[in-house]
Amino acid sequence: MSVRVLDESVGKIVLIKLKGGKVIRGNLQGFDQHMNLLLEQSEEVGDEGKTTSLGTIVVRGDNVVIISPPRTGNQ
Amino acid sequence: MSVRVLDESVGKIVLIKLKGGKVIRGNLQGFDQHMNLLLEQSEEVGDEGKTTSLGTIVVRGDNVVIISPPRTGNQ
Amino acid sequence: MSVRVLDESVGKIVLIKLKGGKVIRGNLQGFDQHMNLLLEQSEEVGDEGKTTSLGTIVVRGDNVVIISPPRTGNQ
Amino acid sequence: MSVRVLDESVGKIVLIKLKGGKVIRGNLQGFDQHMNLLLEQSEEVGDEGKTTSLGTIVVRGDNVVIISPPRTGNQ
Amino acid sequence: MSVRVLDESVGKIVLIKLKGGKVIRGNLQGFDQHMNLLLEQSEEVGDEGKTTSLGTIVVRGDNVVIISPPRTGNQ
Amino acid sequence: MSVRVLDESVGKIVLIKLKGGKVIRGNLQGFDQHMNLLLEQSEEVGDEGKTTSLGTIVVRGDNVVIISPPRTGNQ
Amino acid sequence: MSVRVLDESVGKIVLIKLKGGKVIRGNLQGFDQHMNLLLEQSEEVGDEGKTTSLGTIVVRGDNVVIISPPRTGNQ
Repeated sequence: MSVRVLDESVGKIVLIKLKGGKVIRGNLQGFDQHMNLLLEQSEEVGDEGKTTSLGTIVVRGDNVVIISPPRTGNQ
Repeated sequence: MSVRVLDESVGKIVLIKLKGGKVIRGNLQGFDQHMNLLLEQSEEVGDEGKTTSLGTIVVRGDNVVIISPPRTGNQ
Repeated sequence: MSVRVLDESVGKIVLIKLKGGKVIRGNLQGFDQHMNLLLEQSEEVGDEGKTTSLGTIVVRGDNVVIISPPRTGNQ
Repeated sequence: MSVRVLDESVGKIVLIKLKGGKVIRGNLQGFDQHMNLLLEQSEEVGDEGKTTSLGTIVVRGDNVVIISPPRTGNQ
Repeated sequence: MSVRVLDESVGKIVLIKLKGGKVIRGNLQGFDQHMNLLLEQSEEVGDEGKTTSLGTIVVRGDNVVIISPPRTGNQ
Repeated sequence: MSVRVLDESVGKIVLIKLKGGKVIRGNLQGFDQHMNLLLEQSEEVGDEGKTTSLGTIVVRGDNVVIISPPRTGNQ
Repeated sequence: MSVRVLDESVGKIVLIKLKGGKVIRGNLQGFDQHMNLLLEQSEEVGDEGKTTSLGTIVVRGDNVVIISPPRTGNQ
């Protein structure tokens, strides 16, 4: 079920919260069963909304706390 | 047994406590054997009951401490 | 041997100590090989014995430090 | 070799040191390959030797640092 | 998908963020399924951009948070 | 290779450094693939060389950082 | 690829950075797939380059962050 949601999020902007509090936003290009993530046009989102561009990144899944898929119309 | 309770909680509001103290409430849409969770209409519940909307999220199971299924009539 | 004790504790009140110091008391409904626990009528037990009702909860096993089964007559 | 020592300690008083510094003494009733332990008549041993009775407990193995089997005559 | 990106990054400069905050830049020579990395001409990048040469290093994968492949033309 | 060195250290005094900084010295009686260790006549070695006798102990391998086998003549 | 570099480093001086910041230098004698390392003539390298001799040691792999093989001529 999580997988289906991640599948549907490929090609879309997702928000990632990491252990330690870092927040990253980026275009999800892929993922695997460990929740390793491939993001494009990603940026770190700071405390006051300030963003720092990260470009394409691979996030190692064991750092992930929460993945927010893009909001859809029926929410 | 835990699985049965989680199964019965799908489509209902659950409360999730994460390592580090974060508390999340949301409508459980799915879960897997790692306790990865899919929640809809989720919100983070702050110290004084203040909530922040999170929408649909995937929670990586290794962050979960406690899941509270919805309270039923016979408790 | 641990499993037998947990088996015999199903339907009884157990005390759970979690990593980080949280203490939970509840009626054990089930458990699995990871020590994931299903508790009913559970409550968090505070420092001075103050309790906060938690109702039915699933505890993810990797947070568990100690499980105290109910005391029996021969102790 | 560790297993043999633990086997020989069943029915005897062992001292357990846990991550975080907690020390527990109790009568070892059983253990498994994860070092999950079943102790009876256990007690937590405080900094100045003060003990708090815990009764029968299951200790989740991943919290264990050191197990001291009972001292035998040839030590 | 992550693998393909890492494959394409071999022979190129990547930026690695480690748990604890250390940042390393180096020429990726290889990697495996644990995200163990082999970097050449690597350097640690300090807070103010100051770099310390590390030469060839093996990074154990469980320390990795983020890998930034080289930026390509179409970003 | 590590195994051979540990094999050759059985029956000899080894020094063990644990996560968190604890240092233990004892006569290695056995070990397994997790680096669970069985030590006899062990003692904890304090900051200023002060030792506290621990007798026979089992050390759970995941706490181990470094094992120093006995020094041999050709070092 | 990492393995090949470690293979080529056997018999040579490597620098090891551990979780928590400890730095160790020694002659690599062997390693396994967990990055458990066998070092001879090893020494801990302190903050100001002060070294403390450790002799032969086994390092448990899960503590390793970075391994620096010896620098070769073509770097």
